[in-house]
Amino acid sequence: MYIIRQYLPLFQKYLESNEFIAPPAQLYAPVNYIMRLGGKRLRPILTLATCGLYKTDIEEALPAALAIEVFHNFSLVHDDIMDDAPLRRGKATVHELYDTNRAILSGDVMLILSYQLLCKTSDKSKIPLLLEVFNNTAIKVCEGQQYDMNFEAEKSVAIADYLIMIEMKTAALLQGALEIGAIIGGASAVDVKHLSEFGRNIGIAFQLQDDLLDTFGDAKKFGKQTGGDIIQNKKTFLVLKALEIASTAHKAELLKWMNSGHDDDKKKVTEVTKLFKKLEIPKLTFELIVAYKTKALEHLAMLSIEEKDRKGLVEFAEMIIEREV
Amino acid sequence: MYIIRQYLPLFQKYLESNEFIAPPAQLYAPVNYIMRLGGKRLRPILTLATCGLYKTDIEEALPAALAIEVFHNFSLVHDDIMDDAPLRRGKATVHELYDTNRAILSGDVMLILSYQLLCKTSDKSKIPLLLEVFNNTAIKVCEGQQYDMNFEAEKSVAIADYLIMIEMKTAALLQGALEIGAIIGGASAVDVKHLSEFGRNIGIAFQLQDDLLDTFGDAKKFGKQTGGDIIQNKKTFLVLKALEIASTAHKAELLKWMNSGHDDDKKKVTEVTKLFKKLEIPKLTFELIVAYKTKALEHLAMLSIEEKDRKGLVEFAEMIIEREV
Repeated sequence: MYIIRQYLPLFQKYLESNEFIAPPAQLYAPVNYIMRLGGKRLRPILTLATCGLYKTDIEEALPAALAIEVFHNFSLVHDDIMDDAPLRRGKATVHELYDTNRAILSGDVMLILSYQLLCKTSDKSKIPLLLEVFNNTAIKVCEGQQYDMNFEAEKSVAIADYLIMIEMKTAALLQGALEIGAIIGGASAVDVKHLSEFGRNIGIAFQLQDDLLDTFGDAKKFGKQTGGDIIQNKKTFLVLKALEIASTAHKAELLKWMNSGHDDDKKKVTEVTKLFKKLEIPKLTFELIVAYKTKALEHLAMLSIEEKDRKGLVEFAEMIIEREV
Repeated sequence: MYIIRQYLPLFQKYLESNEFIAPPAQLYAPVNYIMRLGGKRLRPILTLATCGLYKTDIEEALPAALAIEVFHNFSLVHDDIMDDAPLRRGKATVHELYDTNRAILSGDVMLILSYQLLCKTSDKSKIPLLLEVFNNTAIKVCEGQQYDMNFEAEKSVAIADYLIMIEMKTAALLQGALEIGAIIGGASAVDVKHLSEFGRNIGIAFQLQDDLLDTFGDAKKFGKQTGGDIIQNKKTFLVLKALEIASTAHKAELLKWMNSGHDDDKKKVTEVTKLFKKLEIPKLTFELIVAYKTKALEHLAMLSIEEKDRKGLVEFAEMIIEREV
């Protein structure tokens, strides 16, 4: 993809030349570990890409791009503790490899480092605005995580509430990444707003696609075990939609599987997947993804940039729904 | 004390009118709980006091003062998880009252809120410098906490390393509080530096006095159980100094008590306290406290302010070593 080809090598180089090597090693080893576990680096690429829409010298956005990626990884480290997750990107999570205390503290220092990186942006007059966006983004991510934890403990969750939760937990940081790059690039407030709305809609589509792939994706391509959400009874869009539209009998069947324990997870995945298909959940989810993508593209179309410059972000939007189901 | 009388009511009023009342309640209830547990509010008072040295309108420093106090409380919430502490200021710690996940996440949001408050400082041109000080301070506090955790796992700790650790874990935030107030007040860079050095020295003295009070203080006045550090084998200045200067026999006796388990904690406290007295540890500690206090006052004397304006901070320095032993 164009923007990835264009910006990923630049970001990787900057990331690698900015290892966190201060003492004490016990604090910074987990930081370097999680930062080097990989990942698609989508958020920093978006920061560089939106800066590049308005200014040739995108190097100025590199510290902010890294700030976004460090923040994202901070949230992964702490979320993995809260979710008691053993694996992240196929490797041990930070609290598993080191211990919970070090995962808490190195997460804390990453959050601070993300602010320090953001403040390295060379045009100091932009710092107050950048911080305003970053603070609001960071608070939304925490609030989204709390809603996510609340939902896991609740019996029923309204789809509207679920969509608000993923908007906070997932879309907000994409919005922030896009806005921050645009601000550094010198975009108008109107363009920043459109990019933010692009991010909000594409971020929600991204999470819905994630929900879909977890059940209907190709495990090899997706990199996760298919059906993991079903096994864990995660309240994804798929199950919430199914509970909403199912007949009394189908709803009873779904709830039976959700209360069935882990005696036969394989059968549970097969049966719940079959039920989702019967209820046309994949189709309904896909339609919602397309609706969000369409809204996202409408905001892209309203940017005051040349047609050819829109290409990278349009491709990005396509990628969100092109990931194979 | 003058600066407390002058600034505490103003700060308390600001704190109370800035409750964190956004949803989700599960995230913000722990924030309001810890912020209302009390405490001496020394750090925000220092911020207001140093602002007041250079400018009459100290209201401008209120958001930054609250930022410092929120940061301090964030560090307490996360430290209490790491230390597995059940009580803070005589009440349940956040992870005990709620749960560890909520303590992690509400701590995270407090760290972000502290940045958001700092950015509310009305003179936006000062934001980059304020953030530079705040970021460096926050990183030192995390590094200090990591060293503290490291030391608990180590057999022997050099006194020089212990002093560096308390400089980071305790003094850094006092320094930051003083510097930030002075910057908002419009102090010269030279004065900011002297206030920072005042804070560094008085902060180390403060922690040494804390170590001393834990063993030799009046439990009622100090508000903690006397001898808690001895029972927990905490590597305080007292024990490190004792291990440094003790004869072979006395050292063996001290190590025997440190490896004795918890069968007779009362006798352990009595015997170790006796040994400390025999080795003149209280006197040696007190001498070091006075040395740091003297250095602190030297930096105060170098401030380009009127003699009468120094009074509040001199009193503060006195208070550090006046707390009864």
